[in-house]
Amino acid sequence: MTTLYDVAAIGNAIVDVIAPASDDFLAEENLVKGSMMLIDDERAVGLYARMAAAVEASGGSAGNTVAGVASLGGRGVHIGRIGRDQLGDVFAHDMDAIGARFVGGRMDDATPTGRCLISVTPDGQRTMSTCLGAAALLSPGDVDPAVIESARIVYLEGYLFDPDEARRAFAKAAGLARASERLIALSLSDAFVVDRHRGGLQGFIDTEVDVLFANEAEITSLFQTDDFDAAVAAVRGRARIAAVTCGAKGSVIVAGDTIHKIEAAPVEKVVDTTGAGDQYAAGFLFGLAQGRSLDYCGRLGSLAAAEVISHYGPRPQVSLKDLATVAGL
Amino acid sequence: MTTLYDVAAIGNAIVDVIAPASDDFLAEENLVKGSMMLIDDERAVGLYARMAAAVEASGGSAGNTVAGVASLGGRGVHIGRIGRDQLGDVFAHDMDAIGARFVGGRMDDATPTGRCLISVTPDGQRTMSTCLGAAALLSPGDVDPAVIESARIVYLEGYLFDPDEARRAFAKAAGLARASERLIALSLSDAFVVDRHRGGLQGFIDTEVDVLFANEAEITSLFQTDDFDAAVAAVRGRARIAAVTCGAKGSVIVAGDTIHKIEAAPVEKVVDTTGAGDQYAAGFLFGLAQGRSLDYCGRLGSLAAAEVISHYGPRPQVSLKDLATVAGL
Repeated sequence: MTTLYDVAAIGNAIVDVIAPASDDFLAEENLVKGSMMLIDDERAVGLYARMAAAVEASGGSAGNTVAGVASLGGRGVHIGRIGRDQLGDVFAHDMDAIGARFVGGRMDDATPTGRCLISVTPDGQRTMSTCLGAAALLSPGDVDPAVIESARIVYLEGYLFDPDEARRAFAKAAGLARASERLIALSLSDAFVVDRHRGGLQGFIDTEVDVLFANEAEITSLFQTDDFDAAVAAVRGRARIAAVTCGAKGSVIVAGDTIHKIEAAPVEKVVDTTGAGDQYAAGFLFGLAQGRSLDYCGRLGSLAAAEVISHYGPRPQVSLKDLATVAGL
Repeated sequence: MTTLYDVAAIGNAIVDVIAPASDDFLAEENLVKGSMMLIDDERAVGLYARMAAAVEASGGSAGNTVAGVASLGGRGVHIGRIGRDQLGDVFAHDMDAIGARFVGGRMDDATPTGRCLISVTPDGQRTMSTCLGAAALLSPGDVDPAVIESARIVYLEGYLFDPDEARRAFAKAAGLARASERLIALSLSDAFVVDRHRGGLQGFIDTEVDVLFANEAEITSLFQTDDFDAAVAAVRGRARIAAVTCGAKGSVIVAGDTIHKIEAAPVEKVVDTTGAGDQYAAGFLFGLAQGRSLDYCGRLGSLAAAEVISHYGPRPQVSLKDLATVAGL
């Protein structure tokens, strides 16, 4: 089977709607700072009406990772579902425009493209309220076997564990990937997602996952412990490789009996941490697709994460390929 | 008649689609750097497909001015026409969210909201390709007499001289404003607009316009001269007040026999000049609505323009009211 893609990522196709907000606004709207909450269409309309003037840009965790892979010079494809509307056009355009591809489904009815209402408080933190819309209706039919079979790595976004149909699409992709001996990578996405689907995620990790991405909150939630080291010990042997990010402290890569500690790449000023995990995954997966060492993969992930947190927005603003060359990677 | 608004602005309701571009891209697409060109839907679809990943934000000249008036603590309303689609929602939302209002029309059919494809070259210049969509169908029926009669100043965007229906809406607004003794302000918008409609604009200025806004290129185009001083001499007595902006050199306000020279407000670094004229008009008109001197109006306009050129995007990012207080205005 020909390999066309380094990474095929399956996730919620989401357009971000970004507006400044005060702490009082979060309190009035019962939003927990720094969290991602799913909201329905009615709530989204009401919340949007009360938000400040906004800017729209393509987002979505897996979409951001594909953008990172493309910026590194890799070939990425995003599988998702969008509405037959302008924000759907925006999402597909932005994916094509970076030299990646959007495949998957498009609604026949009026279900809108998913959007994430992001309130940015003066301290730089982002609070996300996601209305999945069309993204939640990703179905097994949207997963084209030819795409999965032609990708070195199939990357799955943990958020997809929430909608039933998407979880089935997820299972189909994993099955196809396994059958064609492709690597399967999974991001836990969010500590609350882990809390809602702990059993299902643990089973999936044990049976299917080659590369697991998590941050501290997610990995400790997965194993219901407050102790980071205990969580790292617990993950050993469950996923073939686990890459756990720890913000400014760097990341830890666990693979069998070995543990690699990777320092965070230096950042002059942290502007906005959104997308740090997505870009870490982009660097790591691109390195892995090129057959590089885990140490290299971790350092490339750290570099990509450092770029994205030094500006607003969850996708790279400079060529990560050039940045990696300069950094000697 | 009760005065509800400081400024009622009539203009193209446009959402900006902003993406980086190379000089080669402009050449390949036959785009003239720094210009605004009208394009049809087919051309817009093709151009958008070749543009890089983009960000969307509300724009439109009159809309930007209303945003500036609101930021100064004034009451503004935008009269335009949008599509029954997501970008239309975005435009109306952003107007409401800044404490202004969007009124006017919304399409019953599938005509999309107008959009301006903005290519930003590495030198910071912006080249605009505008697909008017619904905005071009602004019609006299969209102009509510009650809105015009309750505004101190009616502000008209010269771009509206292009579509026939919009020009009739323009004439209706001017007639209503004249009948209720409201001030009529006009922006020439673009040297090419002036070139296309020189006779009509001159006649309109002679008979209807109290306050004329123009930049150097527009005022010299209006009077078909290369000599700025000759153009300033020519405008004297045609509009009651003419405010001519000259970029970093400041502005010149001509009113009867008096000429006020206003210095540009200092800017640490010019990042993006888009919206400078729109924000100058916002400051000037807000001052005028408060009954302030022409000198004050000019200085407030310069301050608002300085804010907007110090960052990306055509609308204020900080409270212009606070900025004016700090500046002692």
